[in-house]
Amino acid sequence: MGDPAGIGPEITLRAWADRSECGLAPFAVFGDAETFTERARHLGLNVPVQAIASLQEAASVFAKALPVVHRPLPVRVRPGVPDGANAAAIIGAISAATDAVLRGEATAVVTNPIAKHVVKSADFPFPGHTEFLAALAERYKGRHFRPVMMLASKQLRVVPLTVHCALAEVPKMITRPLIFETVRITYNALKRDFGIATPRIAIAGLNPHAGEEGTMGREEIDIIGPAIADLRAEGLLVTGPHSADTLFHAAARRSYDAVIAMYHDQALIPLKTIGFDEGVNVTLGLPFVRTSPDHGTAFDIAAAGRASATSLIEAMRMASTIAAERAATTPQ
Amino acid sequence: MGDPAGIGPEITLRAWADRSECGLAPFAVFGDAETFTERARHLGLNVPVQAIASLQEAASVFAKALPVVHRPLPVRVRPGVPDGANAAAIIGAISAATDAVLRGEATAVVTNPIAKHVVKSADFPFPGHTEFLAALAERYKGRHFRPVMMLASKQLRVVPLTVHCALAEVPKMITRPLIFETVRITYNALKRDFGIATPRIAIAGLNPHAGEEGTMGREEIDIIGPAIADLRAEGLLVTGPHSADTLFHAAARRSYDAVIAMYHDQALIPLKTIGFDEGVNVTLGLPFVRTSPDHGTAFDIAAAGRASATSLIEAMRMASTIAAERAATTPQ
Repeated sequence: MGDPAGIGPEITLRAWADRSECGLAPFAVFGDAETFTERARHLGLNVPVQAIASLQEAASVFAKALPVVHRPLPVRVRPGVPDGANAAAIIGAISAATDAVLRGEATAVVTNPIAKHVVKSADFPFPGHTEFLAALAERYKGRHFRPVMMLASKQLRVVPLTVHCALAEVPKMITRPLIFETVRITYNALKRDFGIATPRIAIAGLNPHAGEEGTMGREEIDIIGPAIADLRAEGLLVTGPHSADTLFHAAARRSYDAVIAMYHDQALIPLKTIGFDEGVNVTLGLPFVRTSPDHGTAFDIAAAGRASATSLIEAMRMASTIAAERAATTPQ
Repeated sequence: MGDPAGIGPEITLRAWADRSECGLAPFAVFGDAETFTERARHLGLNVPVQAIASLQEAASVFAKALPVVHRPLPVRVRPGVPDGANAAAIIGAISAATDAVLRGEATAVVTNPIAKHVVKSADFPFPGHTEFLAALAERYKGRHFRPVMMLASKQLRVVPLTVHCALAEVPKMITRPLIFETVRITYNALKRDFGIATPRIAIAGLNPHAGEEGTMGREEIDIIGPAIADLRAEGLLVTGPHSADTLFHAAARRSYDAVIAMYHDQALIPLKTIGFDEGVNVTLGLPFVRTSPDHGTAFDIAAAGRASATSLIEAMRMASTIAAERAATTPQ
């Protein structure tokens, strides 16, 4: 469901309406059925919504209605006006959907956007979805998982080494162990989830022109370069540190399968510049498949009829593709 | 000329060969005529080169040969092998071309790339071309000029607030006076050089999501936001701080005439991702028109026949356009 005061409900309705055209696998929503019915009515969308009690009922419902594993909200939703009183229910929906996937009742979880300041109201101790999902996996599987965020579109896959921190913090967060771990998780995911037999990973430098021989910053010489040398010594096809400005044009993109960027905007600027609403957030390193659209709750345009479902639809399609890839390669 | 051991000579020869097709205004090179003749012969380019003694001769020569205001080099050029012994001559060519433009003998100077580590051999005390050109202007005009680097292509104009420094230095270099000065120079240049009556300038944030209300860095709240408020109070159409990742896609680009980016890669990644070899470096704030191709000397491919003249040709075309714009608006 995501935050029901945002655009999550309407893009989900639109995705169901386009399910055949877009070749979407059957899906169900964990959330409040009434919210979806109301949003459809408000926007004049011809999408019947059917409350179901468990995911098992979804398959038979999906052809004729959007199945919603019904979990009523305590407070009625006002589009565009998030309400902390619904925070626990928002979190509960994520948790229930993830548990269903962990139990094998569905092949992937796709999360609609939530807002940090809303879920905070329910003592949500995680910076975002991703860390929460890792904790749910840990509880279920009894071992630790280190999630890695990848942004992927048809043209580019990119993994930011650091994500939601001030730019001033970035240089001190870049370490060889962090690069090792992130590259290894990315490498394994490119093989397992994207079916790339011999993944090629390009690593961006931190500084302009990748530091230009140390004249503009030494992180490339002291940290990134040695990490790359060690990874190459292990036989991984890792190149860099590359000058970030020349790493993302069409010809350059043909030379790698994914880029490890040093920080949020170095990863997100090229992705969103090339294909604004086609980006999908894929969480690597979890024991289940998880994707999400690459945008926020967009409270400002909730229920206005202008929200694009493109990224959510792409997230669903990518979830299916990854799940199929894993099923094909996992020993039965 | 730029560094004659780089690709400068061959892209200049190619630009001359394409002069009619690309609609280039007549131009002449300040440099060593023999280097150009040899490069043309080596690459099998059918470009006659004619040494001239002064720019006045260029117009009559241009139709049938590439005119070179001949300044012999002390050491014969080996393509791909820069030689510090030629550094003083490389600098002298820049100086002579700029003086000619300052005297009104030409309408613009276009500089081919030089390499910092080469010109350093001649006690060149400037970080690059731009600062040297400002010093030449200051000497000629007797007052101070603050040059501002803009990167421009058909799709995007962007001005990095900070340029060639380590990323770790960027946050402490961002100040309200620097933003003021850079925006004002950019604003005036958009009017005078690009003929935009009421320029719209978008200012990027420094941090992910422009800091997200101070949760990921405070520069937007403490420095960038107040600077924007003051500029708007003066009546300038300045917006921001914008989240940098969503600022450069096609729809967003329609909402401004230029972006002020906080650092090198924030400006250069979108520019080079969109149109890799179409970017032109334009120096704003000088009393003459100056552009340059947006790439380096490329010693590694010098004389290999693979260098693209696109950026140099675009730089020449933009120089002509800006010169025409200034001529049309400057009181006679």
